[in-house]
Amino acid sequence: MTPVRGATNMAEYTVDELAAAVGGEVAGNGGAVMRGVNGIKEAGPDEVTFVANPKYRAALKETRAGAVVVAPEVEAADLTLIKVSNPYAAFAKVLVMFAPPAEAPEGISELAYVHGDARVGEKVAVGPFVTVREGAVVGDRTSLGAGTYVGRGATLGADCLIYPNVTLRERVTVGDRCIIHSGTVVGSDGFGFATEGKVHHKIPQIGVVVIEDDVEIGANCAIDRATMGETRIGRGSKLDNLIQIAHNVKIGEGTLIAAQTGIAGSTVLGKYCVLGGQVGIVPHVEIGDGAVLAAQSGVTKSLRGRETVFGRPARPLIEVKKREGRVALLEKYFKRVKELEKKVAELEKERR
Amino acid sequence: MTPVRGATNMAEYTVDELAAAVGGEVAGNGGAVMRGVNGIKEAGPDEVTFVANPKYRAALKETRAGAVVVAPEVEAADLTLIKVSNPYAAFAKVLVMFAPPAEAPEGISELAYVHGDARVGEKVAVGPFVTVREGAVVGDRTSLGAGTYVGRGATLGADCLIYPNVTLRERVTVGDRCIIHSGTVVGSDGFGFATEGKVHHKIPQIGVVVIEDDVEIGANCAIDRATMGETRIGRGSKLDNLIQIAHNVKIGEGTLIAAQTGIAGSTVLGKYCVLGGQVGIVPHVEIGDGAVLAAQSGVTKSLRGRETVFGRPARPLIEVKKREGRVALLEKYFKRVKELEKKVAELEKERR
Amino acid sequence: MTPVRGATNMAEYTVDELAAAVGGEVAGNGGAVMRGVNGIKEAGPDEVTFVANPKYRAALKETRAGAVVVAPEVEAADLTLIKVSNPYAAFAKVLVMFAPPAEAPEGISELAYVHGDARVGEKVAVGPFVTVREGAVVGDRTSLGAGTYVGRGATLGADCLIYPNVTLRERVTVGDRCIIHSGTVVGSDGFGFATEGKVHHKIPQIGVVVIEDDVEIGANCAIDRATMGETRIGRGSKLDNLIQIAHNVKIGEGTLIAAQTGIAGSTVLGKYCVLGGQVGIVPHVEIGDGAVLAAQSGVTKSLRGRETVFGRPARPLIEVKKREGRVALLEKYFKRVKELEKKVAELEKERR
Repeated sequence: MTPVRGATNMAEYTVDELAAAVGGEVAGNGGAVMRGVNGIKEAGPDEVTFVANPKYRAALKETRAGAVVVAPEVEAADLTLIKVSNPYAAFAKVLVMFAPPAEAPEGISELAYVHGDARVGEKVAVGPFVTVREGAVVGDRTSLGAGTYVGRGATLGADCLIYPNVTLRERVTVGDRCIIHSGTVVGSDGFGFATEGKVHHKIPQIGVVVIEDDVEIGANCAIDRATMGETRIGRGSKLDNLIQIAHNVKIGEGTLIAAQTGIAGSTVLGKYCVLGGQVGIVPHVEIGDGAVLAAQSGVTKSLRGRETVFGRPARPLIEVKKREGRVALLEKYFKRVKELEKKVAELEKERR
Repeated sequence: MTPVRGATNMAEYTVDELAAAVGGEVAGNGGAVMRGVNGIKEAGPDEVTFVANPKYRAALKETRAGAVVVAPEVEAADLTLIKVSNPYAAFAKVLVMFAPPAEAPEGISELAYVHGDARVGEKVAVGPFVTVREGAVVGDRTSLGAGTYVGRGATLGADCLIYPNVTLRERVTVGDRCIIHSGTVVGSDGFGFATEGKVHHKIPQIGVVVIEDDVEIGANCAIDRATMGETRIGRGSKLDNLIQIAHNVKIGEGTLIAAQTGIAGSTVLGKYCVLGGQVGIVPHVEIGDGAVLAAQSGVTKSLRGRETVFGRPARPLIEVKKREGRVALLEKYFKRVKELEKKVAELEKERR
Repeated sequence: MTPVRGATNMAEYTVDELAAAVGGEVAGNGGAVMRGVNGIKEAGPDEVTFVANPKYRAALKETRAGAVVVAPEVEAADLTLIKVSNPYAAFAKVLVMFAPPAEAPEGISELAYVHGDARVGEKVAVGPFVTVREGAVVGDRTSLGAGTYVGRGATLGADCLIYPNVTLRERVTVGDRCIIHSGTVVGSDGFGFATEGKVHHKIPQIGVVVIEDDVEIGANCAIDRATMGETRIGRGSKLDNLIQIAHNVKIGEGTLIAAQTGIAGSTVLGKYCVLGGQVGIVPHVEIGDGAVLAAQSGVTKSLRGRETVFGRPARPLIEVKKREGRVALLEKYFKRVKELEKKVAELEKERR
């Protein structure tokens, strides 16, 4: 029986081996053996941890960690350090080295249903109770978790990791190396109705969804198919959980979207945007490359690139702070107005 | 093998045939053959498109579309037009004509589990890994996508389209011609606890959910069952994705609700309301017929019918604009107060 | 065939029997037979109802209920009353007595997949199309609804009720007597990337989720696993639907969280907090015991215990009301400033 408990794969590496793997330099005991990874507060003498943000460097004084991945300028005489220019990225590599095997199923379960007209690549893994319908294509080494559904004519690239209970509707396209978490639905109908009198007639949603390479989508998201044409999520973009992407939305490459954000129909997001959680964007607007939308903001019009906005309606941070600051001053100003009224009344009395 | 890729069903119609189907008049080449539908920017010479909103008519100058569905007053000498009074509704009919076959499974899969005491109508389609429990009723021509669950004593009407991985809990009722998208849960327990000391005792949620005819519910919604009695969604109402409907909520007929909106317990919505995305409504209030709740508004009290509200807490749009406008004037007023202070100080100095 | 329709289990109790079960005293006809429960407006002569909130006592005048659970001081000569100190908690017990049997499957379905190396307790119920992978542990009398997934090495305690289509990823831990509703995902990857140049490298999420005893989690929630270490939900906490819990979040015991709320990474919630719906909390903050966060609030910094906050950014209710009140006064103050300007202009004119 495979060891499945605990956060690591029972791997062991010396500090020297870890430093070599991440291109770092060792200060301290390079021969110490590390058996796992942990947070700086929790790590013990055989665990490696990291400090990326300078404001957490104080924690170095109290850590019991066997080794710490840090920036080159950090000094800590009592500790074994692995010094690298990007400690966060380096630690990501260390995590991969200690990561337990992925949750992928092995081989094609006899309990799955794969239609005879589906095309399945090499070394594909298909869990129990998976449905793959006619005309679907599943690329090499892609894994489909238990209970996942792949609709008619849907296409998945190579090396994808689709977790259990995902729904990929007909004709959607997923690129290579994508990860889709459980409960997510790709290709549900867009929300479109033509109202005549008291009846909302459904506008058939006959478009598709295209998810480009290296995209990750969190759990329980809903990515609607286009009315016509396509809804598209650009290469290397990463979506958190419970996100709504409406019909005909286009998202550029490398954009990051935090949980519970919703993007309304036909809106276009640029490349390398960053959206906080619980953001809402109205339909039919354009958000430029590199825009940053703070958590919970409500975007009601198009934004230029590289702009940072905040609040509802969303405005540049500087404006929001000014407005907030002015409201905070109201109590004082009200007093000043009252004071003026007293003085003016006095002056008026005198002149008579 | 059925053609499953591409956005259409390989159908072909002449412009005259399309015009006849929607009751429109042709201006231009009625004999031209259309092979698909597309957006006005994307459509090619054998595709039909539409312009419903006057502000998009400028796009007519650059479209390559073979035919355009428009309002009667629109003129465009170089294009073939189909003129109708409601272009949006007419185009919806055109979309239906070109729509690929629905994603419904065919027949009852041998891999489904249908309890012997369930009652299943004629021409029902049941996908693989569907569970239909004892006492459940599934109406004629209704289709259950792969992995869908129908609990004990749940009842579905005729001609429903239930997509894969939907959960319909025990004793819920779904009317005729309803559409429910993947991942949605109907009949989960309402959120109710009676706290004694430090223990939250669960209030059993023994009521039901009733979904009336012609309702559509998007992906990954949660519609809670009533504590006692019923949660009800009125005839012809349409819900988008990721919506929360709490226990004992009642929604009138023809109401539209956009994505990620949440309605708290026992609140009653009227008929033909329109709710934007990410709206929240507190428990135990009543929203009148025809109310319009702007996206992201937070409704904290009952609303009369036909009211449009906005913001948090939600207020009539006119009030919100006035308040916003006043806050925007603060900078100027602060200056005016300072100016006054200077003048008054001057006047006071003089009188001495 | 079991009776499955209707809101009750066909049980009958006299008012005396119900009063004895909840430790209450009868005023009226203790021999009357009750056959169900209902709301105070809907209840008929053979149904029992309750009034817990004093403001709903007026409804006693019009109820047709056969018996009403009330506080000791309530008087209503025409009605049969069951008097108890905590009517809400007492009524919860009455609901349990009338509740229909739970939706649990019976026995282990032949259509489920349970790995040979999984350990399954006594009297466990497993629905069709359930997957239980190698190394998983399922406690005694726990029930797994149809289509539910239990990953490698996941552990469930005794007496849990897991509804259909739940996903429990590898190595997560669920305590005793937990309830998890349909569509919920426990153990999805946290949202963590290390960006180098234009590439977002995935930070492997190798930690776990620990759900303590007596927790209830609603439908379509997403509870992410920790990057390292654990995400933890404390004993007796109750979560509503569509909630996002990010990686490494810790929630104390007895905390209540309403629907569509999101808690960002590494944030720590105390014991017995109450969070309204659609609340958002930023990462890396601490919320003290007993804090109350009003619906839709946006919490941007740590909060002391027992504080009640409101709005975006969240502030103490008293402050929010003061600010709102001042903005509401602006119209008047603007007039007063204009009046002052007129008077000062007059004074200035006169002095010349």
